Amino acid sequence: MKAAIWHGKKDVRVEETDLPEPKENEVRVKVAYAGICGSDLHEYLEGPVFIPTEFPDPLTGGQAPIAMGHEFSGQIDQLGANVHDFQIGDHVSVNPTITKGVLPDNVDVYDGYSFIGLSTDGGFAGYVNVPVENLYPLPKDFSLKLAAVIEPTAVAVQAIKEAHLTFGQTVVIFGAGPIGAMVTAAAKAAGATKIVVVDLSTIRLQKALKMGATDIINPSEVSDVVAAVRQILPEGADTSFEIAGVQATFDQAIKTTKARGYMVVVSIYAHAIQFNPMALTNSGVNLTSTIAYSRQTFQQTVNLVTSGQINVAPIITSEIKLDDIITDGFDVLTTDQSQAKILINLTQEK
Amino acid sequence: MKAAIWHGKKDVRVEETDLPEPKENEVRVKVAYAGICGSDLHEYLEGPVFIPTEFPDPLTGGQAPIAMGHEFSGQIDQLGANVHDFQIGDHVSVNPTITKGVLPDNVDVYDGYSFIGLSTDGGFAGYVNVPVENLYPLPKDFSLKLAAVIEPTAVAVQAIKEAHLTFGQTVVIFGAGPIGAMVTAAAKAAGATKIVVVDLSTIRLQKALKMGATDIINPSEVSDVVAAVRQILPEGADTSFEIAGVQATFDQAIKTTKARGYMVVVSIYAHAIQFNPMALTNSGVNLTSTIAYSRQTFQQTVNLVTSGQINVAPIITSEIKLDDIITDGFDVLTTDQSQAKILINLTQEK
Repeated sequence: MKAAIWHGKKDVRVEETDLPEPKENEVRVKVAYAGICGSDLHEYLEGPVFIPTEFPDPLTGGQAPIAMGHEFSGQIDQLGANVHDFQIGDHVSVNPTITKGVLPDNVDVYDGYSFIGLSTDGGFAGYVNVPVENLYPLPKDFSLKLAAVIEPTAVAVQAIKEAHLTFGQTVVIFGAGPIGAMVTAAAKAAGATKIVVVDLSTIRLQKALKMGATDIINPSEVSDVVAAVRQILPEGADTSFEIAGVQATFDQAIKTTKARGYMVVVSIYAHAIQFNPMALTNSGVNLTSTIAYSRQTFQQTVNLVTSGQINVAPIITSEIKLDDIITDGFDVLTTDQSQAKILINLTQEK
Repeated sequence: MKAAIWHGKKDVRVEETDLPEPKENEVRVKVAYAGICGSDLHEYLEGPVFIPTEFPDPLTGGQAPIAMGHEFSGQIDQLGANVHDFQIGDHVSVNPTITKGVLPDNVDVYDGYSFIGLSTDGGFAGYVNVPVENLYPLPKDFSLKLAAVIEPTAVAVQAIKEAHLTFGQTVVIFGAGPIGAMVTAAAKAAGATKIVVVDLSTIRLQKALKMGATDIINPSEVSDVVAAVRQILPEGADTSFEIAGVQATFDQAIKTTKARGYMVVVSIYAHAIQFNPMALTNSGVNLTSTIAYSRQTFQQTVNLVTSGQINVAPIITSEIKLDDIITDGFDVLTTDQSQAKILINLTQEK
């Protein structure tokens, strides 16, 4: 089969490779669609970040070269010897997170995690072997294309939960990239009544409107972002999401959140910032964060997406072939801000 | 009457002054005991911090020179014309916080606040006028000396609430000064089963043991504070309290808190610190803060202290005369780490 394999920074090759037989607790999935994630792009441009190169990953045993791809859907093609709860032909979404599974679901990822598609072979391939506990069944009448977006949507659903967002509350989102767009859609589905999205890109703000934003702010067009948010939400937002990862938006997120509201750090920060804890003491804002998702959140996201409650369709901006992953995938994502989620169509791969 | 009046930095004078008649919604309180707070010391050594000097305080109308003292108990001595719910001779604790009172109790302080004893005349005086809404009745058989410690105890009770501490959980406290000692006592009263206190002062750690600490750690005696806490609490603490106000303890508090636990910033930070939000993302720790207390918390603290559930007696290390506030109060607090709460006995003042 063909797979897009990470060999090193700027060295991802689409090449022929052999897939081993699935282990007894695994199934072989014929991949249908796989999305390119920001972390895939980071691995390509600046990696290795997560990908294990010097030693095998302690949770998966995987090590570069590794077939990338952790956002994917497909059909079960072969069953491992001990798999009884699935059948060949079942449509599935894959939760790519591999954890120790020792601690309760809501804290399990904080005990360490790896990813199918980053620390063991993933879904930028014709086929992939997946442990049965990572499979989530899908209705057969639900689009496998939309199902490929379940994984990043689960990130957004977890972020909404971390914000303690309740029905009817208000939201401000700093950053309208793919995750910001998904958080917008998830906030809408959770019943937020005002969703203010802040981004420097007009194209991304237009996308945010399609995902459910009620108001958009471009910092390049206002003199004071905090004042602009507070003009819409005079008391501040009940919840804020920092999805830009820089000092300015970190500070703005605190200043636009209500006393006793929650600000959620969704970004991955490359560097430390300056922070005076008095920013919390003076405002009464709670600072929290989110990473990945619990198994419960993944199942809930499957339900929310397949029911149509979260409208994920507008996030998909392009559909490409595996052979073109560099030119039509990584290169386009690097240069074209109109792109949000690029899907690789693997239905014709063998 | 005599009062300790702040005229400027290092210029607090005990002098004769006149008290105006109480306004119609005020009572005159004959002060019994008044505690010296860390913020009083800051106003003396480095002020003005809170004390208004250039303009009248917007909430109280007060302006320096101001009689200090915001932690005090006493007896009602005279009633304003519209005061009907209190009688002369009633014992009272005073909540010194003045707010706009527009927002709900749990967010009211985040809408701005001032203090009796910092922005209008307070309790380092024979008498003080207090608005009726700031009075909390005390049982007549309860010691007015212990009652003077209710206010700082309310700070600790609020901190415990902000930590979402529940019965049977575990706690780590960084900083064993007076507030750290009160948080220790409050955590004990709330049913914490492990209370680990970290401080560089052996004397303060001994005080912490008297207040209810189960374990003490002196960073000068261990190679790794985080490891030392985790030796006692291998999974980390359910809640942590940062009451030292420096980079090292801020970082240590995050690193010793469980995933989904709460770290509460109690310190007043003079400067920004370095902070990578990934410290939260990787740990799952929630970061929150506390300032002053709600009116509900103040009443609950009156109940907890007068019932004896929170044992505040060990915090009182010295009892002095008003005339000696500089030498036996501020100077001693600056130099003697064995001191926690110094009370001024005002029962003989006229």
